[in-house]
Amino acid sequence: MQCQIVSETHTGKDWRQNQEQCLKGKPATRHAIMIIILIFCTMSSPFAARTSVEAVEEGMLLAPKFDAHGLIPVVTTDAATGELLMHAYMNETALLKTLETGEAHYYSRSRQQLWRKGATSGLVQTVQQLLVDDDQDCLWMKVKVAGTGASCHVGYRSCFYRQISPGEGDSATNAPFVLTFTETAKTFDPVAVYGDAPNPTQL
Amino acid sequence: MQCQIVSETHTGKDWRQNQEQCLKGKPATRHAIMIIILIFCTMSSPFAARTSVEAVEEGMLLAPKFDAHGLIPVVTTDAATGELLMHAYMNETALLKTLETGEAHYYSRSRQQLWRKGATSGLVQTVQQLLVDDDQDCLWMKVKVAGTGASCHVGYRSCFYRQISPGEGDSATNAPFVLTFTETAKTFDPVAVYGDAPNPTQL
Repeated sequence: MQCQIVSETHTGKDWRQNQEQCLKGKPATRHAIMIIILIFCTMSSPFAARTSVEAVEEGMLLAPKFDAHGLIPVVTTDAATGELLMHAYMNETALLKTLETGEAHYYSRSRQQLWRKGATSGLVQTVQQLLVDDDQDCLWMKVKVAGTGASCHVGYRSCFYRQISPGEGDSATNAPFVLTFTETAKTFDPVAVYGDAPNPTQL
Repeated sequence: MQCQIVSETHTGKDWRQNQEQCLKGKPATRHAIMIIILIFCTMSSPFAARTSVEAVEEGMLLAPKFDAHGLIPVVTTDAATGELLMHAYMNETALLKTLETGEAHYYSRSRQQLWRKGATSGLVQTVQQLLVDDDQDCLWMKVKVAGTGASCHVGYRSCFYRQISPGEGDSATNAPFVLTFTETAKTFDPVAVYGDAPNPTQL
């Protein structure tokens, strides 16, 4: 997984496609190229190699696992209240920027670019604590949010502003699962803040 | 996304492969098959269709978005303490089983099958509240855990038992980011509980 180095314009998929094209040469050439790539990737990664399950689970070196798209999921909670604010993704660049600056940076899948949280809205997230899970394929980030304290582009404080009410179907549409709102009002007007910027929600 | 119906033995990938094979016929046949599939998927899904951004973000019907593998990420927290316990995935079957039984069911990516949490360890998670985020591509599940209250297969209470200490590199390996443990002891012995079952952590 160390090879899935990505940047704002260079995704893991691109990298693999380039790699596959390179590897279409003769066997000897292919092996030489593979060795060079492996050495390059090992040397260039700022994170520890994932050499054993024991080292990943019980070790003291950060060895994050980025997925096939070069991303790792991030669970972001309010450091003061513990409330889950949002669930997003980082690529390697975003994780390094976050560690370097102490401000939350993500990778926007809809815009396909590095995303400094709060760049438009001012709702910057300052990292208070950053944890990693057992197999190091997920991060938990505790933050302090600037401004109104909101983190949701729809205007609510948390992105999780609706709960599922099992057993309460909708008679009009026959849909078996309905939602009820847990936040009663938006904390800001998204149109005023984001203007006509594309909505990140995708169908 | 309504078409990505999966079960324990029938993943979204299999479904798409079958679909692609079906669609290799003549254009007229292909179109007819596509229409039938779309009607079937729309009729058979227990969730609402994702017809508009407004309906997904502000509506009151559950219309979850499963990814290309038929999965949706789930953030599981302790209902009493708010602590993040784990981050896992559900497929449609797991979500329906969870809603039906009130006990957490996930989809195990390592074992590629439905996973009733606590089936082996007894650490069953009883759902107290289930929320969905703005674009309905992530779930937040608040649970009460049976037994020792742990949720991590390594033996710790939370899967997130290590924090990243930026700026504190490891001089022996030149690794720039080291981890420190936030839990001081395991709550159970994973060898005694899981025996020689395969470890879900993958490199």
